[in-house]
Amino acid sequence: MTTKMMPNRQVGRSVKRLESHSKVTGRAEYTHNLRLPGMLHTKIVRSTVAHGLIRAIDVEAAKQVPGVHAVITGEDVRKFIPQPYFGPAFHDQPILALDKVRYVGEAVVVVVASDPHIADQAAQLVVVDYEELPAVFDEIEAAKSDVYVHEELRPAGTFPDLKHLVGIRNTNIALDFSLTHGEPEKAFAEADHVFEHTFTTQQVMHTPFEPMISIGEPTHSGLTLHTASQSPSFVRIEIARLLGWPENKVRVKTGQLGGGFGAKLYIKLEALAAALALMLNAPVRVALTMEEQFYTITKHATTFHIRSGVTKDGRIVARDCDVWWNGGAYADIGPRVTQKSGFTAAGPYDIENVKIKSAAVYTNRPPAGALRGFGIPQLVWAYESHIDLIARELGIDPLEMRRKNILRNGRPQATGTIMKDAAIEQVLERTAERMNWSAPFDKGSGTRRRGRGIAIGFKASVAPTTSVAMVNIAADGSCSLYSSTVDMGQASETAMAQIVAEVLALETENIRVVRPDTDITPYDMATLGSRSTFHMGNAVRLAAEDAKQKLDELAREVGLTNASDVPLSQLFIKKYGMQAGNVIGVGTYIPPYKSPDKKTGQSDNATPFWMIGATGVELEVDTETGHVKLLRMVNVCDLGTPLNPKVVETQISGAAVMQIGFTMSEIMNFDAGQVTNASLADYKIPSFHDLPDLMENEAVDAEQTTGPFGAKGVGESSTFGVSPAIANAIQDAVGVRISSLPITPEAVYRAIAAADNRALEEE
Amino acid sequence: MTTKMMPNRQVGRSVKRLESHSKVTGRAEYTHNLRLPGMLHTKIVRSTVAHGLIRAIDVEAAKQVPGVHAVITGEDVRKFIPQPYFGPAFHDQPILALDKVRYVGEAVVVVVASDPHIADQAAQLVVVDYEELPAVFDEIEAAKSDVYVHEELRPAGTFPDLKHLVGIRNTNIALDFSLTHGEPEKAFAEADHVFEHTFTTQQVMHTPFEPMISIGEPTHSGLTLHTASQSPSFVRIEIARLLGWPENKVRVKTGQLGGGFGAKLYIKLEALAAALALMLNAPVRVALTMEEQFYTITKHATTFHIRSGVTKDGRIVARDCDVWWNGGAYADIGPRVTQKSGFTAAGPYDIENVKIKSAAVYTNRPPAGALRGFGIPQLVWAYESHIDLIARELGIDPLEMRRKNILRNGRPQATGTIMKDAAIEQVLERTAERMNWSAPFDKGSGTRRRGRGIAIGFKASVAPTTSVAMVNIAADGSCSLYSSTVDMGQASETAMAQIVAEVLALETENIRVVRPDTDITPYDMATLGSRSTFHMGNAVRLAAEDAKQKLDELAREVGLTNASDVPLSQLFIKKYGMQAGNVIGVGTYIPPYKSPDKKTGQSDNATPFWMIGATGVELEVDTETGHVKLLRMVNVCDLGTPLNPKVVETQISGAAVMQIGFTMSEIMNFDAGQVTNASLADYKIPSFHDLPDLMENEAVDAEQTTGPFGAKGVGESSTFGVSPAIANAIQDAVGVRISSLPITPEAVYRAIAAADNRALEEE
Repeated sequence: MTTKMMPNRQVGRSVKRLESHSKVTGRAEYTHNLRLPGMLHTKIVRSTVAHGLIRAIDVEAAKQVPGVHAVITGEDVRKFIPQPYFGPAFHDQPILALDKVRYVGEAVVVVVASDPHIADQAAQLVVVDYEELPAVFDEIEAAKSDVYVHEELRPAGTFPDLKHLVGIRNTNIALDFSLTHGEPEKAFAEADHVFEHTFTTQQVMHTPFEPMISIGEPTHSGLTLHTASQSPSFVRIEIARLLGWPENKVRVKTGQLGGGFGAKLYIKLEALAAALALMLNAPVRVALTMEEQFYTITKHATTFHIRSGVTKDGRIVARDCDVWWNGGAYADIGPRVTQKSGFTAAGPYDIENVKIKSAAVYTNRPPAGALRGFGIPQLVWAYESHIDLIARELGIDPLEMRRKNILRNGRPQATGTIMKDAAIEQVLERTAERMNWSAPFDKGSGTRRRGRGIAIGFKASVAPTTSVAMVNIAADGSCSLYSSTVDMGQASETAMAQIVAEVLALETENIRVVRPDTDITPYDMATLGSRSTFHMGNAVRLAAEDAKQKLDELAREVGLTNASDVPLSQLFIKKYGMQAGNVIGVGTYIPPYKSPDKKTGQSDNATPFWMIGATGVELEVDTETGHVKLLRMVNVCDLGTPLNPKVVETQISGAAVMQIGFTMSEIMNFDAGQVTNASLADYKIPSFHDLPDLMENEAVDAEQTTGPFGAKGVGESSTFGVSPAIANAIQDAVGVRISSLPITPEAVYRAIAAADNRALEEE
Repeated sequence: MTTKMMPNRQVGRSVKRLESHSKVTGRAEYTHNLRLPGMLHTKIVRSTVAHGLIRAIDVEAAKQVPGVHAVITGEDVRKFIPQPYFGPAFHDQPILALDKVRYVGEAVVVVVASDPHIADQAAQLVVVDYEELPAVFDEIEAAKSDVYVHEELRPAGTFPDLKHLVGIRNTNIALDFSLTHGEPEKAFAEADHVFEHTFTTQQVMHTPFEPMISIGEPTHSGLTLHTASQSPSFVRIEIARLLGWPENKVRVKTGQLGGGFGAKLYIKLEALAAALALMLNAPVRVALTMEEQFYTITKHATTFHIRSGVTKDGRIVARDCDVWWNGGAYADIGPRVTQKSGFTAAGPYDIENVKIKSAAVYTNRPPAGALRGFGIPQLVWAYESHIDLIARELGIDPLEMRRKNILRNGRPQATGTIMKDAAIEQVLERTAERMNWSAPFDKGSGTRRRGRGIAIGFKASVAPTTSVAMVNIAADGSCSLYSSTVDMGQASETAMAQIVAEVLALETENIRVVRPDTDITPYDMATLGSRSTFHMGNAVRLAAEDAKQKLDELAREVGLTNASDVPLSQLFIKKYGMQAGNVIGVGTYIPPYKSPDKKTGQSDNATPFWMIGATGVELEVDTETGHVKLLRMVNVCDLGTPLNPKVVETQISGAAVMQIGFTMSEIMNFDAGQVTNASLADYKIPSFHDLPDLMENEAVDAEQTTGPFGAKGVGESSTFGVSPAIANAIQDAVGVRISSLPITPEAVYRAIAAADNRALEEE
């Protein structure tokens, strides 16, 4: 059922964001603005060594500072919570470091004071004595090293398919996903050509402009956490587990989020805020500076060896992918990224024989988790650079090369899952069309050389997950929606309200969306991986339909055929004799899914839906400086039938801009494990003049038949193609291939210089 | 279905109150403790005249006081809310006085300041110039007077059966309820004896120890009211009506209440708090002193002419009741009291021929509303004094007289409704038994004379009303209950949790009860008239049963026969593959009911259930001082099958103690409409030495077949018999009859003296 067929056109309309007014009037509910009576403030003392045993901690001087309420160490926490280890995939991260530290910046001690400045001051006085241990930083070295970041693996049990890892010792490989499809070895042997390349990506940060914050508040019924989280339901469950409490004693409330991008997922500061609030029996605020976010959660650096067997006419017959994920010191959701993205590492191509190994590796770096794309941009970077190189080697046009191999609906993906509702070909063709690929292209001249590139990627959705929604209609017919989806700027509240309004024939603007509060809003796995529109959207639709059905029952009880015969308020008066009562609808959605076989990685239903994104780029390289100017960028995605076209367009451009940063400039620099540019002064996110002169964003006309009103995920798809499209365009312009991100002017300049030298030598 | 039959004995167990711990540890959530950033404080300037036109208001001096943000008059409010009149039964009360004032203490102007002391100070500087009008204070005079408190009647429309009053002019009679059963005139003519008496009660106050408070807070989505209210759902609807908003823009949150007793019902300070918050665009706190409560809501003073036709052997064959309710200047719920209690004015007796007139009268006194008993104690005071006098005249033992006439199940009450589940006879007999009525009784001697008395009353429940409840089970099996019933000390949270636990075979102590918050907890008419245990109790039971059914469905989906086969947490894991999801049950309850005929007052189903309470008293009168010492009090009630015996017992004793105050000491004294004892120093509530030496409370073994697990209302029944039982015992002791409340030592002394004089004269 698509928008077009609906009567009251709430869905498909570019409704203004419901929350905009509150943001421009300063009424937006950010956790940072919350002040609780008697609230205490904190400063975290962080590790100065990458790997070391904690010999001694001296907190006496800090305790003497007037206004300091407590100085808490990991051991203090352990007295209160005997097993103080948390994490979504592994229970490997202590609330405060215990026995040893595993990266520079790890939380070791926390000072709690009446005022944040006092806490800062006192934190300077804490002295920690370490016995340094050898450290490992590179994912490849770490995989082989006998320096172990953790003594043993501790899968959380959240995901049954990780249970087999329990208790494995003496390894830094947290998870090793492998997939085999067809007979890759045989196919490689028979291939006309075999191409092999290695590509790497750097460690970067999410940079939400609202820094992370969690406030713990002891209450009459247990504990309330006010937290800038993307996953209130998960926090509730994880905190309850840590405390040994039932879920209903833990209340998690989120406000509006100033960005998340995966940084505020699962559990971060909440465990510390909860422990401190209960230990000190007072509200305690744990808020990070921008700098501290660099030490809290990041995006995986990766190394990707990719090898393809190709026929002379350009058909890819075999592909071997070997992906190494640098997970840092704690697993966070890394193992899940490794798995869930791993199985698409061969790209959106129809390849009969595929072999994939994807390994999450512990190192002594800040932890890496999920960042807009859940690992996909790293994979696309490699396979779309790789295919471009192959095309050039074989003298085939890069677009043509992709056309020859593109994965079409009805054909099996590497897991064996038959593709459906995946407009891969359509996205590729539409991108080419908007790039006028077939038309002649001005390559520039002299020191200003122009090139163009194209790249396409796809992504599966995380599964299995559950979403529950509730719709409540008051006696005057006004309607409230209860959903634990967190609006961090993506306008999910507006989109969900549109779905309710569509089903109940109301105006979106009149729907009241109740913010996530685990005492109120039902369970949702999390706001991540572009799952909300599809998963929560379906749950919301079911809840609204349940309410509609109950309204119709009510109508029949009072002798009407259906609810729409009279104004809703009349319906209630007829039934209850006055303005009284509610109609409450509930919807629960779990998508059909079959988890891939542990050995072969095969599944006949590996994902609830596919996300597709392609990018075309035209750019100019200054051969004297290596500076790259983006002239034009075309982003085309398949995100089903848009619920809110305007919002969808801003999501496409936003994701692409973010990926431009990861492509051209952003990188966390390290010196012996110490981040040397942990500030927005030194860590360069894109500014306006880094953006393309012309940027075009388009959603192809598509439909996710299983999605709410044909819709599916939107937030990540345009991150996929950006990096390789740019690298491909640079090669098109100046003939050099950049295989490591970021593509800084220096990197381009050095590549050009090296090429020139080779040319000279050859003379 | 009664407790005994249940497997897991949650119901019928004296579970400790769930909220006690929070109260003794200071964690109880009282609205008074709430501090919002930027919250402003208020002081109300009140009328100094009982009836007068507002000529002019000078607020300039007050405005000049540093820290004053605004000084608001009724006209200012009217600019913001064109029709600023509110009320549950009539829309007759302005947020601040408009054009004229109708009683001393009426709110005329409000000062809003950054600090409460500044507001107090500035309020002194406001000058209001009145043109005084003649005033009426007595309900009988007011009914005849041509001085009109209101120009016309404005029924709210909330209750369809009041619609006929719209626009009636030139009367102080707000509502005139009448009932005729059988042929009273004929029966009176044929009676052997006709007895006629008049009894009066005084105006008193509820005296909740937590004074009234409401805080208005503008929010991104409209308005939140934090208020100590017994009726959050009603407040939401009424505020939405005043503002012309949908319900879902108004959020009403209540904390724990430090008593209510009807004072905090419907809408009181909320309208002013809402208007100020929106006019000033800031959180505004309106909190009353104990003194101000005397000017806000009270209990009706009444005059009751009662006439009975009796056969020589003591059968009452006809009764004529003429009840006048002094409603004060604004109707509040008075008209409802007049109706809903009016039809039981003939008492719990089997009388073939009955005539009742019950009139709510406007006067220039502080408004009267509902106070623990909803008018019943005033009625019982009259009809149980009356029957005692008749018994004495006829030389029949008072108990015997009642036995002859008692109303039994299966017989019609004055409305024609056939009595069911009403243990009237049982309550009477059990009271007599515990009083050893048949045993000889020591009447004392000299100046210390002893007497005993007995009295019984009954009450109908307010109808029609609706209650909605919701039960939410989290993935670990922990359970939360959402109910808008307000716990003001009656332990409703505990009782409701017991019902949920009983149905779902959980432990009551593990149920999380979510406090009333109209964004979260579904609709409930209000917490009043002992309706919650029955109405909300039934809704909660239905909600829990709905959840249970859904759990069983879930069980079947995962191949089990029913949910109890495995721990609940396992059920969710089987279904969702991890700790995920919710099961949400909803229950809506509306009792069967037929509103009495407007002309005849007849109905075949006049109430959802009956409440019965009897009191026996032994006392000693000091004939020299008139001081009355209560030696023993026995309170026996029919409240169905107790859900929580311990709580039930404290409710019985609490209600009786409260009524002792209204019987022996409490009275609001007036001088030209001015309350002259508006403070707890001068207004005397009972202290420990005013209580009986021995107090016995008992619930007879009964069952309300339509109630949750056989239960029904508890909170008021033991207020019924207290006053007449005491008056009857005094006459038994010293032979004088007190017919006006309160029975002060002075009143008793004067009655004894008058009797002595009459005796002397007769010599």
